[in-house]
Amino acid sequence: MKLGMIGLGKMGANLVLNLMDHQHSVVAYDVNAEAVQKAAEQGASPASSIQDLITQLEKPRIVWSMVPAGELTENVIHEVIGLLEEGDIIIEGGNSQYKDSIRRAKEANEQGIYYFDVGTSGGMEGARNGACMMIGGDKEVFAAIEPIFKDINVENGYLYSGPAGSGHFLKMVHNGIEYGMMQAIAEGFEVLEKSEFDYDYEAVARVWNNGSVIRSWLIELTERAFSKDAKLDAIKGIMHSSGEGKWTVETALDLQVPTPVITLSLLMRYRSLQEDTFTGKVVAALRNEFGGHAVEKK
Amino acid sequence: MKLGMIGLGKMGANLVLNLMDHQHSVVAYDVNAEAVQKAAEQGASPASSIQDLITQLEKPRIVWSMVPAGELTENVIHEVIGLLEEGDIIIEGGNSQYKDSIRRAKEANEQGIYYFDVGTSGGMEGARNGACMMIGGDKEVFAAIEPIFKDINVENGYLYSGPAGSGHFLKMVHNGIEYGMMQAIAEGFEVLEKSEFDYDYEAVARVWNNGSVIRSWLIELTERAFSKDAKLDAIKGIMHSSGEGKWTVETALDLQVPTPVITLSLLMRYRSLQEDTFTGKVVAALRNEFGGHAVEKK
Repeated sequence: MKLGMIGLGKMGANLVLNLMDHQHSVVAYDVNAEAVQKAAEQGASPASSIQDLITQLEKPRIVWSMVPAGELTENVIHEVIGLLEEGDIIIEGGNSQYKDSIRRAKEANEQGIYYFDVGTSGGMEGARNGACMMIGGDKEVFAAIEPIFKDINVENGYLYSGPAGSGHFLKMVHNGIEYGMMQAIAEGFEVLEKSEFDYDYEAVARVWNNGSVIRSWLIELTERAFSKDAKLDAIKGIMHSSGEGKWTVETALDLQVPTPVITLSLLMRYRSLQEDTFTGKVVAALRNEFGGHAVEKK
Repeated sequence: MKLGMIGLGKMGANLVLNLMDHQHSVVAYDVNAEAVQKAAEQGASPASSIQDLITQLEKPRIVWSMVPAGELTENVIHEVIGLLEEGDIIIEGGNSQYKDSIRRAKEANEQGIYYFDVGTSGGMEGARNGACMMIGGDKEVFAAIEPIFKDINVENGYLYSGPAGSGHFLKMVHNGIEYGMMQAIAEGFEVLEKSEFDYDYEAVARVWNNGSVIRSWLIELTERAFSKDAKLDAIKGIMHSSGEGKWTVETALDLQVPTPVITLSLLMRYRSLQEDTFTGKVVAALRNEFGGHAVEKK
């Protein structure tokens, strides 16, 4: 099939290559002209603007937006909705908040444009060689574009999950689970590190990946990380986050679902960003006030 | 090699079959005579007592204890230590607390007997067809019995982890991680269940197993469970536990390692055992006292 790709960053550029591997024809656009040129050298049709990209497509046009979530995606989607016609299709593959996807789908649908929100997992390697995608949107129209998803994902690696918003919701919850699993794994290794034993962490991760209950891709990545740096001496334990864990917790609060593990995983990431805490100062001061317990001075 | 197996329950009986598949010769004993007879029919040499089992072995004897942790293991190990001679080998494969293993190893070593504590993961399927084992004990002597572990575990599925106690410690932490991963997965599905979307959970688990970051054996088991009962209507959300999560948390407390996720996973299991809580009554009563907020009457 022929489609347009807006956004040629790490994910978009790899998806273009993946699509072309499967004989899809891609018109590629990015605000960064170098990225467009590189895609053109690899076989994509270059576009000089979103307008130009849409002009190069035939009806019903399929436009895939793969730009960072938030304002950038918002602007791209608005511009694309303004340029597309009835029966055209938007695929939005960024890490959008699912409520934004529901709203954008409604705006597109009002113009007769179909809208699919796609949550993508598997990282850059997945985008290049076979990802995992969760897709919300119109069920009948999905059948028409399903061959694309069959081609660019691993076997059984895509799911039509329901109406618009359901794809990004599912991806959001996937990431919430990921936070909890990662924190659990990491806490376990810290117990090992503080223990009386002297474990080889790469060997531990390897044995856990072979026949144990916790074998998983995350423990494979743990093994890979320890193979490069046996005690992770070169890095700091600062855990950034990019929004989806927070959204999962916010959603759990709205739905009144008790999610202590996912929530604590997120809060421990925030704690890791602090060198010292005001909480700590307050508790230390109170212990001093009521019991004369020593405080550590700055 | 030739060895004795004490304990022919779910794990022990399957290990015997696994050992015999690999041309090891097994003398089998259990307090349950039927289990001994069944093992004999499958090719093991039956023993009528621990004493008889040991008599049937040649020096250096290798005795594997695979009985439930706690008092049963304690009694078996004491009896075995009393019957073995210098240079003989005990392999203790139950879910023992690592401090018990350190103590028992010391007692065995004082008699010149080698002691290996083995943490086993992979369940019954693993015991039968290839498990994952973490082994603590004397490093030089381990080389002599290593062929056994190479045979009965999956490829790269065993690890000599250090001195006595290190095997059970590693298995304990493995289970702590398992608690956290399971709770994270489960919380995610509860967010899906309470959401505005109507997901097919078997399909969700399947797509997450194909190309996503959280792909894992636990999500494969989740897929299997949902394939049997689409909404798990037939079971209650009561989460029992068998000790290793608690030991991980106790150890983390002793070592002062902050493990909020593993700890909360354990506490949520305890919460699931309660229909109503005294905590809930106290909070409801306090809200009523200070704000006149309604309480729900029994």
